[in-house]
Amino acid sequence: MAEKKESLGIVETKYFTFAAAPDELVLESGEKLGPVTLAYETYGTLNNEKSNAILVLHAFSGDAHAAGYHQGDDNPGWWDDMIGPGKAFDTNKYYILSSNVIGGCKGSTGPSSLNPKTLKPYGLEFPLITISDMVKAQKQLVDFLGIERLLSVAGGSMGGMQALQWFASYPEKVRSVIPIATAMKHSPQQIAFDEVGRQAIMADPAWNKGGYYESGQPDRGLAVARMIGHITYMSAASMEEKFSRRLKKDGYSFSFNADFEVEGYLRYRGESFVKRFDANTYLYITKAMDYFDVSGAKLVKNVKNPDVKFLVLSFKSDWLYPCAQSKELVHQLKLKQIDVTYCEIFSTYGHDAFLVEVEAESKLIEHFLENINGRNKNNGF
Amino acid sequence: MAEKKESLGIVETKYFTFAAAPDELVLESGEKLGPVTLAYETYGTLNNEKSNAILVLHAFSGDAHAAGYHQGDDNPGWWDDMIGPGKAFDTNKYYILSSNVIGGCKGSTGPSSLNPKTLKPYGLEFPLITISDMVKAQKQLVDFLGIERLLSVAGGSMGGMQALQWFASYPEKVRSVIPIATAMKHSPQQIAFDEVGRQAIMADPAWNKGGYYESGQPDRGLAVARMIGHITYMSAASMEEKFSRRLKKDGYSFSFNADFEVEGYLRYRGESFVKRFDANTYLYITKAMDYFDVSGAKLVKNVKNPDVKFLVLSFKSDWLYPCAQSKELVHQLKLKQIDVTYCEIFSTYGHDAFLVEVEAESKLIEHFLENINGRNKNNGF
Repeated sequence: MAEKKESLGIVETKYFTFAAAPDELVLESGEKLGPVTLAYETYGTLNNEKSNAILVLHAFSGDAHAAGYHQGDDNPGWWDDMIGPGKAFDTNKYYILSSNVIGGCKGSTGPSSLNPKTLKPYGLEFPLITISDMVKAQKQLVDFLGIERLLSVAGGSMGGMQALQWFASYPEKVRSVIPIATAMKHSPQQIAFDEVGRQAIMADPAWNKGGYYESGQPDRGLAVARMIGHITYMSAASMEEKFSRRLKKDGYSFSFNADFEVEGYLRYRGESFVKRFDANTYLYITKAMDYFDVSGAKLVKNVKNPDVKFLVLSFKSDWLYPCAQSKELVHQLKLKQIDVTYCEIFSTYGHDAFLVEVEAESKLIEHFLENINGRNKNNGF
Repeated sequence: MAEKKESLGIVETKYFTFAAAPDELVLESGEKLGPVTLAYETYGTLNNEKSNAILVLHAFSGDAHAAGYHQGDDNPGWWDDMIGPGKAFDTNKYYILSSNVIGGCKGSTGPSSLNPKTLKPYGLEFPLITISDMVKAQKQLVDFLGIERLLSVAGGSMGGMQALQWFASYPEKVRSVIPIATAMKHSPQQIAFDEVGRQAIMADPAWNKGGYYESGQPDRGLAVARMIGHITYMSAASMEEKFSRRLKKDGYSFSFNADFEVEGYLRYRGESFVKRFDANTYLYITKAMDYFDVSGAKLVKNVKNPDVKFLVLSFKSDWLYPCAQSKELVHQLKLKQIDVTYCEIFSTYGHDAFLVEVEAESKLIEHFLENINGRNKNNGF
């Protein structure tokens, strides 16, 4: 066990609003969106040179609340083990900026936000967005904070996609990139799992073509979608370890009740998810992930800062974002003569490992960041 | 390519009805079921000694129509490549019996059958059934046909479970067993995928607690369940090969239409499945698979015929029924000093491989059966 490190204590989510008409955000689809609000949190202190900022990006169902506690909450942010004083993302040294995404339902502009034209929730009037649109919005936030160049951009899963997109879109704005348990593009199997989740939601009559904000969420469909997701986030081994074939009661029920603990767990996870997540956001964000593709020449375009460094991490039992996808990324980077360190971390936790394998991740990230930061202090060396 | 072998030509499904009240079939749950009808087909000729009968058992959504053509049909039975003159299950030598299962919707008694007590479809009045109940019913059919001992019982996936259950329940009735791409018990991951499929069906209001036979199937929920299934039947590699990220049209639609070919394929497969399968049967049969467990001492009980031989086959890219589960079966059999041949067949087709990898399967099964049959002719040698 790693020693338990100090928490950041109480933190607050902040909101940045920009791009009101007529200066709306132009999306990859050509549609325009505005005004745009991004929820974000910051931990640590931005130095005078504004050179110690690290942008942390969350996964599919995450939010800006990455670390510390919100007033009155029992649980800290989703990466609290990694962000704080003395932790991998050390708030004694670095200024950590955690940004939410557009399309979301956690305080940023998304399908459940009010459409300024109708003064009703957007629903399906919300335009389709892409990972590059999410990053374009985040760029406005980073500019607003006066940060010329980020010391690093880091994230797991969809957070890793955003990190890659940051480098693809604004290579001059990032000194280093830490993509974890992610891919340059979704494989057909990854698209397939997303599509089944979307179909589960759209099959629920309560979805009502996205117009359910007065009548109530498509709870059942969204719960099914989340259950599918949960299976893909775990590994066969971690499920065996956590549940095996243990029954909830003695003997089989000979009914369609949940007999096995794993069934009860999935039902519970599905039911709790619908209380904290918007079904339309599920549709928009999975589609953004499916559209994402920075493979081949798309990742490294006219790079003028060959001093960028990558730390690529993947986990052996992650079958949703298998190591082969990270290796392909490393291969592409090396072909472009970019400095990349790759580590395949042993874990039985499957895709969830990026949230769980704190000790291994911390060592690798801490050392990587010190190296970058050292170069930073010495004008590039 | 293997040479194209002759087909059986036109075949017909037959029906065997038994166990009318008061002699109903007593199920593992203690409930009684009757009368019971089993749909079955036979190919080849039963010899005078009735010693050349092979029982072939189908997978989850299969049926008794394993080979040949039904009058007017364009497509043959589900294992036509394997059953016929000169094929692995050579109808010039063997009498092939293909039996459906109770709980099904392909001519055998199941939840869509008329409940003799109400003269309405059973729906959820149908009792929960297990793989051992399916086999208990098949035993009645085999007895009715006057077959003392089966030369072999063979099947893939749930068919393999039935084959294992035949040996567990009636070891003296089988000379050999060919379990393919199967397991002694479902892992929590396998249970989880089944449970999500069931939840997708039960989430559809049209399901109406199983009472939809007048109002119409829960089409949307059943389609979602089937889509999940399809992902698990393929491998990441076979999906990459078949679809990659190919689009249905040029460019992204920036809508929730199916952009990628894999999305269109899954939607199509879901929609066509609901036309040929009953949603309640989906629930009953997946539950039977989840309950199935012949691990440990349950498979080999008081065996009086140590001359039984096993041929266990699995496929490298099958992640739904991974090779490790077949190896565990082989291990259990060897511990009981049972003669077992194991082969892990290279394939990129995932779980579907047992229906596709005809050439490798044929060679192994043909040779295995000849060996058993030879021993048969020479009174055990």
